[in-house]
Amino acid sequence: MEYPSKLIEDAVNEVAKLPGIGKKTALRLVLHLVKENASSTQLLTEALSKLRANIKFCKTCHNISDDEFCAICASHRRDKSILCLVEDSKDVMAIENTAQFRGVYHVLGGIISPIHGIGPSELTIDSLIARISDKGCEVKEIILALSPTLEGDTTAFYIHRKLKDFPVRITSIARGIPMGGDLEYADEITLGRSITSRILFS
Amino acid sequence: MEYPSKLIEDAVNEVAKLPGIGKKTALRLVLHLVKENASSTQLLTEALSKLRANIKFCKTCHNISDDEFCAICASHRRDKSILCLVEDSKDVMAIENTAQFRGVYHVLGGIISPIHGIGPSELTIDSLIARISDKGCEVKEIILALSPTLEGDTTAFYIHRKLKDFPVRITSIARGIPMGGDLEYADEITLGRSITSRILFS
Repeated sequence: MEYPSKLIEDAVNEVAKLPGIGKKTALRLVLHLVKENASSTQLLTEALSKLRANIKFCKTCHNISDDEFCAICASHRRDKSILCLVEDSKDVMAIENTAQFRGVYHVLGGIISPIHGIGPSELTIDSLIARISDKGCEVKEIILALSPTLEGDTTAFYIHRKLKDFPVRITSIARGIPMGGDLEYADEITLGRSITSRILFS
Repeated sequence: MEYPSKLIEDAVNEVAKLPGIGKKTALRLVLHLVKENASSTQLLTEALSKLRANIKFCKTCHNISDDEFCAICASHRRDKSILCLVEDSKDVMAIENTAQFRGVYHVLGGIISPIHGIGPSELTIDSLIARISDKGCEVKEIILALSPTLEGDTTAFYIHRKLKDFPVRITSIARGIPMGGDLEYADEITLGRSITSRILFS
């Protein structure tokens, strides 16, 4: 594709670096900004610059935060005895949206993935161990809430081994047939696990 | 959706204003920028700000341009006797990509759409008339290359009426079955038109 302007080309190239955005979509977005008032572009670029310059990560759980400690860790109404271990901030948001969890979190910042060059040291595992080693630590249970993929399972296994000498109960989120899911279309592994891990009907 | 940070929320709201980007996609893009180096965000915001501040529109054809006149209008190798009328700069790029047209363009900047409050005066129709009224004007043919929608047809009809007293030939891009298209799946109007506007087999 040849662009009518170097400015357009530069902007398209930068926008197309975003995940899931190809050159065609990038061009559509850039031409939209050109068509709109200059203030739209200004608001957008200011919000992004401000975000990147001022964003903090909670010193306890590594979740995205406006302050030194995130709203969840700072709250006195959360149950500090249950800790939910997740891959990233998106997962915290997803679980918070369910309103089913009143404990605290620990954000790993990724999962172990040798292919992408991410080893245990790139994650916040040491910080988790320091956190539960602390004398004042109230954590009694750690819920592993990682994606059921090869990397997720590897990470869960690694962390499980690291934590086995601590006096904490280690659990995992339930795997099974999703709500509204059709048995016929479930894969064999999910369906098999949903039978072996069956629960009392209530 | 509750966000862990006001900065994230502001950024998501701004990104979600872009066409075709919902809150979920916006969040994914914003979290990507947070994860990447600060320089990624800087490059992106700089490219967009620079674009919006410096973009120009060609004084002759209203296409997006880095200079006062676009590369196509400024070129001595283009055939100034054929003018292709398009809705916006994206269409110029699309036609340029075919490498089948060596004439010049005129970018309307939209199409007549009463629902969206766009009347003829919002478009560059007056500028087109001034352009072909000019004594030095070489235009002998105007190709109407608008989308075959209700609005596109209305606009084409309006412009056709405005131009009927000028000594220019007015043509329209061919409508018919697209290359690789299956007759079976073509709609009746397209198929019908492709028969009435049949061409000599060559």
